[in-house]
Parts: sequence; structure tokens; C-alpha cells
Amino acid sequence: MDKGLLIVVSGPSGAGKGTICKQLLDVEPDIMLSVSATTRAPRKGEVEGKNYYFMTKQHFEELIAKDEFLEYAHVYGNYYGTPKRYVQEKTAQGKDVLLEIDIQGALQVKEKYPHGVFIFILPPSMKELKQRIIHRGTESEAAIEQRFMAAFEEIDYVKKYDYCIINDDLGNAVDKVRAIIKAEKCKVTEDIEKIISRFKEEI
Amino acid sequence: MDKGLLIVVSGPSGAGKGTICKQLLDVEPDIMLSVSATTRAPRKGEVEGKNYYFMTKQHFEELIAKDEFLEYAHVYGNYYGTPKRYVQEKTAQGKDVLLEIDIQGALQVKEKYPHGVFIFILPPSMKELKQRIIHRGTESEAAIEQRFMAAFEEIDYVKKYDYCIINDDLGNAVDKVRAIIKAEKCKVTEDIEKIISRFKEEI
Repeated sequence: MDKGLLIVVSGPSGAGKGTICKQLLDVEPDIMLSVSATTRAPRKGEVEGKNYYFMTKQHFEELIAKDEFLEYAHVYGNYYGTPKRYVQEKTAQGKDVLLEIDIQGALQVKEKYPHGVFIFILPPSMKELKQRIIHRGTESEAAIEQRFMAAFEEIDYVKKYDYCIINDDLGNAVDKVRAIIKAEKCKVTEDIEKIISRFKEEI
Repeated sequence: MDKGLLIVVSGPSGAGKGTICKQLLDVEPDIMLSVSATTRAPRKGEVEGKNYYFMTKQHFEELIAKDEFLEYAHVYGNYYGTPKRYVQEKTAQGKDVLLEIDIQGALQVKEKYPHGVFIFILPPSMKELKQRIIHRGTESEAAIEQRFMAAFEEIDYVKKYDYCIINDDLGNAVDKVRAIIKAEKCKVTEDIEKIISRFKEEI
């Protein structure tokens, strides 16, 4: 059986990667969403193993020490990370795994999993990105400007990705992700020798 | 404007590349089919510039000398080749150009146009390939065996291609080619610097 793909959808905040991933999972129910681990407390309604794997700081740090994360970050006193095992198990079973993640996280994943499929989501325009950041929260003007400048800088990291999608139309953007997944499954990789042998054996 | 793609669809005879290309052009009328040049005489109904560019042997050899072919071959006393100019003009205009071609031709094209998209079509099985070769003509058993063995050997060249599609269902195979084209347009290439600059300038 062929291995599944690790599909990493990433980009600056406000580019719309969350909406794209949600819609992708609706139309491609066989794709598995990678569930993150965190040390923060569950919020009302959050389900263990669905929204997050909730764990103690000590356990999280043990997993870090055992190199059990594809990536992790420490944000406002809590850890967040992507457990390696889930991705490994599912892809080994031939399932595609989707990871929706910020740029710093994606770059960490790429170091450990270079054969993943790295997709960068760009907003339709910088103007539009600013509007989205403004509409997102109740932040001060200075905070908005800072967030916007961070996104502006982060866009340069697109160079490290395999694909770039401009999110000017949600349906089109989702279609593009689906096309990328379909195309990646047709790619000639080092496994091709095995495929040829299998193919020729049957005569 | 972005450059168009050169899409090379190739594979052993009997794999079904002709049928796939015909259907692809039906559903994607914006893709331009590359027209070959030949020194053989036009057959009844064949139209200059549509079926072939018909030309004298002398003219063909002049074009060879000027390196005007992406690939060419000499078959049973006639030349057949893919003029470079058509591909260059159309792709420069942002049009995608489709080339349906045998494996030897495709490998020549790859030397001159390595940034093309090379797609290898495999028959559903070797057994099925043999059936297709048998049904195709009124050839002797020895000729069929020879043609089959040639196809058998040629399959190893799939390693030189970017993508491989098993043609076990025509509709699926065409969908895969379309997905590959869509995905290739999202690929991060050296042009990404220009895209980022354009993107950032507009603020």
C-alpha cells in the first residue's frame, strides 16, 4: 500500500488557511486532520483527542525530550505542538494527514518531514489582509500595525514552500489544494522502482 | 503575465495517451495542441497547420541545422518533429501547450525544455497492453511480441518523468492530468520573488 501524504497548509494569519482547511475536510472526508497537543486547560466543550490532546507540562516536556514533536512552540506560558506519532501512523496506513499551522511551525515540520507537501496561503492582497486583521479583533491600532508588519515579513517565507495559493476565492483555493493533493499522488518518486516491478511481475 | 506550461503526455504505444489528450482538449479548450512538422505527403483531408506542418526534406533539414526542433525523428524515410517556435510563442503568451509524443521524443524534449511537465501514461496492466497491441493492427504474432517487448522495456523510462498516471479509467486519468496542470500553476518557482514584490508593492 502506498503511504499517505502529509499536507501542510500554512501562511500568515488572516490569509484564510483555517477556512480553506475546514472546507477541504468537508469535501474530502478521508483526509485526517492532525490534532495538536497542548498544556493549556481544556475550554468548555473541547474534547480530548478531537480539539487537542491535553497534557501536563511535565508530560509535554518528556515528549520534547524524546523528539516526539514535528514542531512545538511555547506561547504565553503554554506549550502547543504537533505529535509526530499521529502523522506517522496515519500516513503509514495510507491516509493523508492535514496540518494547519503557522509559518514558524511549518518550517520546523519541514526540517523533520521534508517530503511533506507544503502549501502557502496568500491573502488576495495586502490591503485585504489588513482589513481581515482589523476585523478579527478588538486590538489597538499599534497592535494591528504590528500584526500586519509581521505578516508582511512572513510572506517572504513562501520561497520555502512547494506551492503557493492566492486566496481570492474560497472555492477556487480549495479546488487548488485538492488538485495539488491529486497531482502529488501521481508524482514519480523513489517508490517508482517498486511500482514498475509490481507492474511487470504480473505477466 | 505568467508563462504557460509545456505539458508533455507520453508513454508506450497502447497506453492510451492519444485518447487521454483528445478528451483533455475537449474539456480544457484553452490548452493548445502542439502541431508537428513532417516531410511526408499530406493524406486526404489533412490540413496544413492543423494536422501537421508539411514541408520538404530540405526545409526540414535546414530547421534541424538551426536547432528549430524540440525533438525530431526519421521514420521510414520521413522526418517528424516538434517545432520549437510554436511552443515558445504560445507559452510566452501565457497559453499552455500540450505535446502528445512517444518516449524517445519526450526524452529529447526534456533535454531542451527541462521545465516542461512530463507525464507518463501507463496502461492498466501489461496484460491489457498486450490486448491493446493485438487489437490495434493486423500484425503477425512475432511483430506483436516485438512491439510488446519494446513497450515492456520502455516502461523503465518512467523514472525520467515528473508524473505517472495509470490509465485504468479514462475519466480518472483525464482528471489527474487536469489536477497536475492546476497544481503546477501553484508551484513555487524562481518567479516567486517577482510575485512577492508585486504583491507587496500595492500597499
